[in-house]
Amino acid sequence: MATQTKPILHGYFRSSCSWRVRIGKSCVEYDQLPVNLIKDGGQQLTEEYKALNPMQQVPTVEIDGITLSQSLAVIQYIDETRPGPRLLPADPKARAQVRMISDLIASGIQPLQNLYVIQKIGAEKMQWSQHFIDRGFQALEPILKQTAGKYCVGDEISMADICLVPQVYNAERFKVDVGKYPTIKQLNEALLEIEAFQVSHPSRQPDTPDDLRA
Amino acid sequence: MATQTKPILHGYFRSSCSWRVRIGKSCVEYDQLPVNLIKDGGQQLTEEYKALNPMQQVPTVEIDGITLSQSLAVIQYIDETRPGPRLLPADPKARAQVRMISDLIASGIQPLQNLYVIQKIGAEKMQWSQHFIDRGFQALEPILKQTAGKYCVGDEISMADICLVPQVYNAERFKVDVGKYPTIKQLNEALLEIEAFQVSHPSRQPDTPDDLRA
Repeated sequence: MATQTKPILHGYFRSSCSWRVRIGKSCVEYDQLPVNLIKDGGQQLTEEYKALNPMQQVPTVEIDGITLSQSLAVIQYIDETRPGPRLLPADPKARAQVRMISDLIASGIQPLQNLYVIQKIGAEKMQWSQHFIDRGFQALEPILKQTAGKYCVGDEISMADICLVPQVYNAERFKVDVGKYPTIKQLNEALLEIEAFQVSHPSRQPDTPDDLRA
Repeated sequence: MATQTKPILHGYFRSSCSWRVRIGKSCVEYDQLPVNLIKDGGQQLTEEYKALNPMQQVPTVEIDGITLSQSLAVIQYIDETRPGPRLLPADPKARAQVRMISDLIASGIQPLQNLYVIQKIGAEKMQWSQHFIDRGFQALEPILKQTAGKYCVGDEISMADICLVPQVYNAERFKVDVGKYPTIKQLNEALLEIEAFQVSHPSRQPDTPDDLRA
């Protein structure tokens, strides 16, 4: 049966959207096929990869006979078709809050640090990225203050947590002072204690360069 | 009962994300409270509005006692809590494709034309927006060629259609030649025949200026 084949994850160790998918549900194991976004001018730009993902981005997941891109679409598909604790809560209002926080990050913050965007920005890319991450975190902080329990929405791990941790990692790469956002900082620290967030970390992937390996 | 109060939609006639929510489910009527993104330096920047939506964007929806931002979170909440034909298909694979197309637009294209982004780009904003819309449409066209029936995914209206039409409207505002993308063009034309897309059009809102009114 198609659903019993291991899904293939085309990703990159440091891509925050690839990391989201790797956190996903702990019951799902992938065959990881690294796509090096830097080497050879960017392996995502080959015609072969473009046929798989016309946006020429990572991640792409081949699963159950279909090819999916867009990390949140992948995460929700896996959440709906695999067993295990749900990453979208059963209560419609809590579910809406999970999606609101996920999209605030996935549409409101991350796209502005995408490789093809900051390549176009050029020399200003550090200030540009800091500006938009700070802008987003200033909005996210008061929202999380209202919705958070142990994790982003209440006390259960959700898709919002899966979006938060890789975004904080990106913020640190771009030298944003995350200490200005105490709720974000605390949630990130709590989440990084969890195994699913640890084993999926950019410092521990098959394509992690030796000097960045934990 | 809270669910019987009319939800309040804080939006702007020309915002593509506000338009997405207005298309939504035809059974839902909103009290529309316009937020003029240009007038008075931007009414979304007031402290009062910031308390409602810390990202200082439109749309914001007050519904069932909660305040939601992020258009796709709003659309899915309403889809899950109101009667009528579902905007997310029942089949998990079709649902994943709807989300993939929606997110390709909502995370991969639209954020780069957000007002606060193009204000930072300044004089180059027209070329910048064209570049990223063309980049996105070049990816969307082959995907839609595979998924589309009468509409973006098969023959039923979905969230993907709700994302497509406002993005094509944006493309036309930024003078992108949509004729280069025959599948996108044809789907857009078919969708604009439908009443829900017509009554929600930017040219027919309470805050539409007289010279842009249809």
